[in-house]
Amino acid sequence: MIRKILLSLILLLILGALGVFYISSDKSKSALILMTDFGVKDGAVAAMRGVALKLSPELTIHDLTHEIPTYNIWEGAYRLQQTAPYWAEGTVFVCVVDPGVGTKRKSIILKTKANHYFVGPDNGLFTLVAESEGVEEIREISSANRRPDSQDSYTFHGRDVFAYSGAKLASGKISFAEVGEVIPNNQLVMLDYPKSRFENGIASGGIPVLDIQYGNVWTNIDKNTFDKLGVKPGEMLNVKVLSKDSLVFQGIMPYVHTFGDVKEGDNLLYMNSLMNLSIGINMNDFANRYGISSGRDWKVEVSK
Amino acid sequence: MIRKILLSLILLLILGALGVFYISSDKSKSALILMTDFGVKDGAVAAMRGVALKLSPELTIHDLTHEIPTYNIWEGAYRLQQTAPYWAEGTVFVCVVDPGVGTKRKSIILKTKANHYFVGPDNGLFTLVAESEGVEEIREISSANRRPDSQDSYTFHGRDVFAYSGAKLASGKISFAEVGEVIPNNQLVMLDYPKSRFENGIASGGIPVLDIQYGNVWTNIDKNTFDKLGVKPGEMLNVKVLSKDSLVFQGIMPYVHTFGDVKEGDNLLYMNSLMNLSIGINMNDFANRYGISSGRDWKVEVSK
Amino acid sequence: MIRKILLSLILLLILGALGVFYISSDKSKSALILMTDFGVKDGAVAAMRGVALKLSPELTIHDLTHEIPTYNIWEGAYRLQQTAPYWAEGTVFVCVVDPGVGTKRKSIILKTKANHYFVGPDNGLFTLVAESEGVEEIREISSANRRPDSQDSYTFHGRDVFAYSGAKLASGKISFAEVGEVIPNNQLVMLDYPKSRFENGIASGGIPVLDIQYGNVWTNIDKNTFDKLGVKPGEMLNVKVLSKDSLVFQGIMPYVHTFGDVKEGDNLLYMNSLMNLSIGINMNDFANRYGISSGRDWKVEVSK
Repeated sequence: MIRKILLSLILLLILGALGVFYISSDKSKSALILMTDFGVKDGAVAAMRGVALKLSPELTIHDLTHEIPTYNIWEGAYRLQQTAPYWAEGTVFVCVVDPGVGTKRKSIILKTKANHYFVGPDNGLFTLVAESEGVEEIREISSANRRPDSQDSYTFHGRDVFAYSGAKLASGKISFAEVGEVIPNNQLVMLDYPKSRFENGIASGGIPVLDIQYGNVWTNIDKNTFDKLGVKPGEMLNVKVLSKDSLVFQGIMPYVHTFGDVKEGDNLLYMNSLMNLSIGINMNDFANRYGISSGRDWKVEVSK
Repeated sequence: MIRKILLSLILLLILGALGVFYISSDKSKSALILMTDFGVKDGAVAAMRGVALKLSPELTIHDLTHEIPTYNIWEGAYRLQQTAPYWAEGTVFVCVVDPGVGTKRKSIILKTKANHYFVGPDNGLFTLVAESEGVEEIREISSANRRPDSQDSYTFHGRDVFAYSGAKLASGKISFAEVGEVIPNNQLVMLDYPKSRFENGIASGGIPVLDIQYGNVWTNIDKNTFDKLGVKPGEMLNVKVLSKDSLVFQGIMPYVHTFGDVKEGDNLLYMNSLMNLSIGINMNDFANRYGISSGRDWKVEVSK
Repeated sequence: MIRKILLSLILLLILGALGVFYISSDKSKSALILMTDFGVKDGAVAAMRGVALKLSPELTIHDLTHEIPTYNIWEGAYRLQQTAPYWAEGTVFVCVVDPGVGTKRKSIILKTKANHYFVGPDNGLFTLVAESEGVEEIREISSANRRPDSQDSYTFHGRDVFAYSGAKLASGKISFAEVGEVIPNNQLVMLDYPKSRFENGIASGGIPVLDIQYGNVWTNIDKNTFDKLGVKPGEMLNVKVLSKDSLVFQGIMPYVHTFGDVKEGDNLLYMNSLMNLSIGINMNDFANRYGISSGRDWKVEVSK
């Protein structure tokens, strides 16, 4: 009799333990991060969230931004590189800047060596994270991982393909191997852009984006490249900004730690929060004042 | 002695099981979705979230959009219809486009046959979800479901009535029956608008909204109505856009699957992500180029 | 034998109970609320969220707003006061309007008597919550509570100091005492502004912010001060709006409960959702029509 009760108790305990384990394991699901050029004025992002949560109500979802300028794949590529390093391993980024939606361009999930997953169109959007984090493996999203009954919808892969398959992966309903067929790493579509370099006493690079809210100009001249100039904080430097090789701005300004190190209205060079050289005016908008924009046509040169 | 220990064990087990059950049940709460015309520049939406979470810290809250144009009940109605189908059963939508706040208009919760709940003012905001999902039952929000000590506040029912009662319902603190008195289904305020139809070889309908981010014109001509024209992908069609019955645009363009099926800068007709006929330009803004807007005055006619 | 099994069972039960407790306690963590002037067009806010969630994946994060006008400490102060009362005790607000980032200004966490925590720069941003909730204790954030390896980054304390230390506090990884050294309450930086008062039959005060989405003018004349005028709903009142002491608007309008109490296009006085006197036009934008703005230079006078 007692033996029977004990056996039942043990069974109950095991079930209980499994229950606790099940609840705990739920919590170790990966976060899903959304980046699009959809804006937030309509219901597109909410439809993506709904699709993901219907599949897995426990999923936590965060927005990277939905204000990538329409069709601007290059700026999308930069925003991914800018933020991915701050997210935990296993995080799944659903990325939609997709002028070619519904055409032959591939729908993929890229796994990086930093163990981040990037879900989206294979159109160059993953250029910069592929370079900075390294490509572990790429898989084409199979039709089994598309939202059921969505085959007549050609213009909203953000909802029907990317949010859906991203949520399946983030919630552990499929493994990365179940995403679809492997695509060779060297077939990933990559965008060309001006690289950072040091030559003849000049540190040069491109302007991938503006720090839009404040009007600072962010270059891709990294700290290592800049350090070859041998500059001390406070030292004055020559700065040139060019668009399609014609001069847009030329000036002399100090290299300092932060805005408050110069007077209000003064120009400055500083390392931005991504440790790339940047140009600003304390309490004003440098890009706007000098008509400077960003993109693959723009170049910056800095020398003593 | 052993018997006593066994009894204690069994009691403990039952308590444990209840604990696990309690935690699990927490997780089956419904999501709360917020849609307003408040924008996100001030603290109004944050106050609504705070009120809901103070009531139930476990609640998950998502934004549909807060950028409904100010007082535009019609566009709010459309955004609800656009997104609700992608959300799980039981989801509670708190909806605030409410020019009549503090007047005699009713505060209601509408339950649809699709088992979604819509909380908000009875001013026509629920016209389209009532039509597409079907009305199960409507209840007027009783004063017991209003935020305590908010009776002197007349202008922010989003916070004091809708977020508060919506959170009570979503978190299971009240059942739908406890919301308040039943209102007969046929008393729901409904907006009038141009319906989609096929007549004399012409498929016609209204322009409920623009696809604002990209400038595409979304009609409410659904796939079934359009199919009566008997059009094959690639076929050219006549398109007229009228405002208050005067012609704003007339042109010939192909019906295709997606943007990339025509050259950049070319016009196209396509089924949008809600399976309604839409007009666009590949990589450009159709609405802006031809001065087309949306609302209940606008009409589209398509023929061979 | 049975005794051994019983002992194992008891051990298992205790472990199980601890597991349940661990999971439950997880859920009592405080929410983290973010307010910045960063906008949401780039990846700054997403980087802050990533940093917080990497530290504690269970944390729930909400946005107050990221649209504080750039460098506008005063408006940030108001938005905190506007929303904090609606959030539960223990809530941690990470607040970044920080023109002096990287200079000598202190990085602090303020605990109020209402048991809310405010994390951010000591530059006046906490003026209004300090006044309305009362200061319990202030601590300077120690370098131990800064994101590891971020010492070369001088311009993004939102990510490296405030999000990181705020997440540590909200997740219970540190207690408030472990934040850093105590700063005397009277050393908190406070902004000066026009206070609400009643004198010679005139209720007067400032315009801390506009109700931007709708164009209503929000004063800081609270209900108690206004009640000294002895006004009944529907009564007509004289209203003056001044900027730097010169008259910008003068008019007569009724004091009513809500917008719908006057005709469309008519002016009205009403108590807003924070129980402060406000000026609006039913279905129109008062501030825009009369060129009224907000800030510490603006004043409103109301009399019979």
